[in-house]
Order: sequence, then C-alpha cells, then structure tokens
Amino acid sequence: MYRYDRQTLLSVTREGFVRTRRVRFQDVDAAGVIFYAAVFEYCHDLYVEYLEAHGVSLVEVLKQRQWAAPIRHAEADYLRPLRFGDEIMVSLPVAHLAESELTLGYRISLAGTREVAVVAQSVHTFVALPDFKRCPVPEGVFMAFQPLV
Amino acid sequence: MYRYDRQTLLSVTREGFVRTRRVRFQDVDAAGVIFYAAVFEYCHDLYVEYLEAHGVSLVEVLKQRQWAAPIRHAEADYLRPLRFGDEIMVSLPVAHLAESELTLGYRISLAGTREVAVVAQSVHTFVALPDFKRCPVPEGVFMAFQPLV
Amino acid sequence: MYRYDRQTLLSVTREGFVRTRRVRFQDVDAAGVIFYAAVFEYCHDLYVEYLEAHGVSLVEVLKQRQWAAPIRHAEADYLRPLRFGDEIMVSLPVAHLAESELTLGYRISLAGTREVAVVAQSVHTFVALPDFKRCPVPEGVFMAFQPLV
Amino acid sequence: MYRYDRQTLLSVTREGFVRTRRVRFQDVDAAGVIFYAAVFEYCHDLYVEYLEAHGVSLVEVLKQRQWAAPIRHAEADYLRPLRFGDEIMVSLPVAHLAESELTLGYRISLAGTREVAVVAQSVHTFVALPDFKRCPVPEGVFMAFQPLV
Repeated sequence: MYRYDRQTLLSVTREGFVRTRRVRFQDVDAAGVIFYAAVFEYCHDLYVEYLEAHGVSLVEVLKQRQWAAPIRHAEADYLRPLRFGDEIMVSLPVAHLAESELTLGYRISLAGTREVAVVAQSVHTFVALPDFKRCPVPEGVFMAFQPLV
Repeated sequence: MYRYDRQTLLSVTREGFVRTRRVRFQDVDAAGVIFYAAVFEYCHDLYVEYLEAHGVSLVEVLKQRQWAAPIRHAEADYLRPLRFGDEIMVSLPVAHLAESELTLGYRISLAGTREVAVVAQSVHTFVALPDFKRCPVPEGVFMAFQPLV
Repeated sequence: MYRYDRQTLLSVTREGFVRTRRVRFQDVDAAGVIFYAAVFEYCHDLYVEYLEAHGVSLVEVLKQRQWAAPIRHAEADYLRPLRFGDEIMVSLPVAHLAESELTLGYRISLAGTREVAVVAQSVHTFVALPDFKRCPVPEGVFMAFQPLV
Repeated sequence: MYRYDRQTLLSVTREGFVRTRRVRFQDVDAAGVIFYAAVFEYCHDLYVEYLEAHGVSLVEVLKQRQWAAPIRHAEADYLRPLRFGDEIMVSLPVAHLAESELTLGYRISLAGTREVAVVAQSVHTFVALPDFKRCPVPEGVFMAFQPLV
C-alpha cells in the first residue's frame, strides 16, 4: 500500500485540483474548532468533484455496478485549527497509481495566507462487482489521474 | 396529513418509548449549542430502535424492497438549548396511524430536571416498491405502533 | 410565531437568493436517498451565505456576543426524493420580520427541471447576550432581509 | 509522534474499554456502506466516554479552559465494510503516553463474529490555554490512561 509521508504532502509545489470553500457553522465541535472528521468530508467531496471534472461520474459508476473503489486507508495531520467561516483551499496536488490501488494526497490551506492547516491522504482499492475481487484500476480512472501522477 | 400541535406534544403524560443519550461533542455548532438538525438524527435513531424493539427490522425491510416509508414532513420546536454532554431523554410518546401514513410525536428532555428541550414530529408515507405508489401501512408496522396510538 | 403554509412556499414566484449545489455522497442514507435532516444543513448554509452577502458576518456576530438568533422552530415538507449527485437549487425567496423574530422560507428544486423537491422554513428568535432576553431584530439583520419581505 | 502500526492494533489481545453500538441509518453513504469518516466519530465518542468513565469530564475541561488536547494526527485502516444495522464493538485496547502527547489505538469489530472491520488511531497533543503552548499531559488524564498503557 502506497502512502505519502507528511513532508511530501507539505512540500509539493504543484497546485493540482483546487476548490475553495468555507468551514461550515455545523462543522465545528464543542471545542470551537473544526471537528477532525470533517476534513475527510472535504477531501471526499473534492475526490468526487475531481472525478466528475475528469470524465468519471461516480453517480454512473454506482448505477452500473461494474466496480467499486472502497477506501482501505485514510489519514490526516492537523497543523493548525480551522474555525467557522475560515475560507479554505482544499487541494489534490498528487496521486499515485498502483496495479489495483490509488493513493490521493490532499492539502487544506487558509485561502488568505496559504498556510497549510491539514495534509491528508486516502488509499482506494479497486474491486470488481459483484464479487469484490481486486481488479486493475479502470481505464477511465487511470487516465483521469494522470495529471497528478 | 395528520400533525400534532406543539401543545399536545408538550402536555402528553404518557412516557412512551424512551432512550437516554448524551449530546455529542460534534453535535454542537459554532454557537456552542446543539445544531438544530441534530435533533432530527436523535429522533430517527429512536424510530429505528422502536421498530427493532417491536419486531420490525428496518435492515430487513430495506433488503426485501417490498415497501418504503419516506418522510413527507418533519418539524421541531426548540424550547431550550442543549449543550455538549447534556444527558437527554429522547422519547416517542405518541403515534397516529392513517390509511397510508404514520405521524410520530417526539420529545427531548433533560434527564435530570425532565425539562422539555425540544418537541418534534415526523410524518411517514408508506409506498409499495418498486413503483412508489401509496399503500396501506404494513401490518407489522401497524401492530408495532398500537401501544402509542 | 409566524409560519408560512406549504402552499405559499410552493407557489411564490420570486426567485430570491439562490445557490446551486450537489447532493453529496455522504448525505444519502441506507434507503439510498437524501437523509431528511440534510436539507436543514443546506438551508442553514444558505442562511449564513445570505447574511454574509448582505453585510452581516455571522463569524463577527459570534465574536461580539451582543446578540444571538437561536432557531425556535424548523420544518420541511419533502415532495420528491433527492439522490447523490443531483444538482439542486437551494433558494430563499421569502422572509418575514416580526418584533424579535425572523421567519425564513426555503425551497429546494432540481436544477434541471426546476421541480420542487423540498420546501422548508426556520423561525429565529433574537436575544440579547449574555442574558438571553428577547430583543428587537438587530438593524443590520432587519435591513439585510428587506429584499425578501 | 508515536504511532501504532496496523499489525499491533490487529493483534493486541487486551479487550480494553469497549462499547457496543449499531451502524446508523444515516452513517451509510451512496455506496451503501458506512462512510469512511463515520468511524472517526465512533472513535471520538468512545474517547469522550472513556475519559468520563475514568474521572475526566471533557465538559468540565472545556469550561475551565486550562488546557486542550487537539488532535494532531488521525488514521484508520478499513478491513471490511460495515453496513446499516451492523452491531459493532468499538474498543480502545491500547494507549501510549509521551511527554505532551497521547496516542490512542482503536478497533471496531462485528459484535457477532468479532471479525475486525477497522483499526484506527488518534494522536492528541496537550496544550496550555490560552497560549496554546505544549504542556505535560495533565495528571488526571495521565492517570486515566494508565490501564491501557
């Protein structure tokens, strides 16, 4: 399983795929900062949007039931707290493709200062349906992530 | 569509089906009190548990695809704020059955003082699958809610 | 407490404040359609964005602790199910101002067909901090909602 | 920063602190299995309950504003999918204490078969308030986690 080390995700200079959003009112917890699990929602939203923007509709994939890409591993490093209303850039600068796996490296920065608040990654395993046996990365997905390899 | 008025939900003396839980760390929003949508999660959790405790497994219902009970209407009145760690009683004291609809009345109270914090209700419409046409309330569900009618 | 009737929210012709978004992968529940509480998140996101766009930063309001606007009542009518990936228009066409209350009427439509999927509303009560006594609608908020009255 | 390797979390025989719960209706995503971020909610719920059960009320900690324990790192490995209604055991079998950090190792198993579905961990950094400078693990917390070291 391919994993990025935290330093790589911090130092990569490529911008990659970026979307700006705000930390929502309800994404904050009782300590007054973003709840740690919320960043995984931001990352997954970006993943869905990246696929869509590169010709792979996850809605269609789920309808066709040919393959699935369950997450095998996820992790995040939190460098500074995010608060309600913070304008953030969620970016996907790097991806790594293996035979039947895809590792995605994410970065969340404050839009104003570009200070990195979180680096994260997810490892997706491709399986053929309905038997859930590992399969090669589907060609459409393989092509979609070429710009980030 | 049958709806309870707020006063009825406040004044009903029957305890009904009750579960105790705590307001979670992440259910709070940037204002430091429970996010208003979270109470609908608490109510739905109780609905699933009520059905299970009265012989209707929603897991099985979803597998069998004979019928569904989408929510047609939901509402809540917020009487006092709830905070992280508050021990609350979520209760389902009343239900109303119509030809193809079920209205459920909920109440959320502080466990210590029994002060009511929220009253809520949901109206479920029963439909036959796969064509989504209205159907009578399934007998198992009809029987399950008799104690609350 | 001022409440819209469902028919008013369905038939109002004013577009009001509109934002387009997609139903998220994780907003869906085990029945394969949007979880009913998720629409309240969409409405609240729009409320925050409306305020921001009309000169009232909720971030600043929370910092200054002069007043708060807790939700006293919320409700939604669900007319058709929404699914993962659906492109929707969340709109705020109408608002009603009273002495110390604000009622907001929302509508969620499919972006393509403009069919209404959900109508919803929330009633906010204005209170002075730190004593939580009712106060008049703050002038900035009062002015902000004039276009929708 | 101390991190467990996945094999350690899989093979540890100590039961530790365990709570049973069910995968909720709304914790599932459009692929029909638990959304990956939901497991972090389950872990955090257990963390709060563990502290409470061992004499540390997070509610009090947040009120007193002497210290905080923001999460610096979190990760999870997903071994098998969880579905709506699955009865699961969320356990905290191991903890590691350092000068100003706490690493918690979690395991989520199916209650029936005890098959492991997820292993996860979180690293908390202790900081004194209001200046957010690193501080030693507070004595109450240090003592609370002795049974798991």
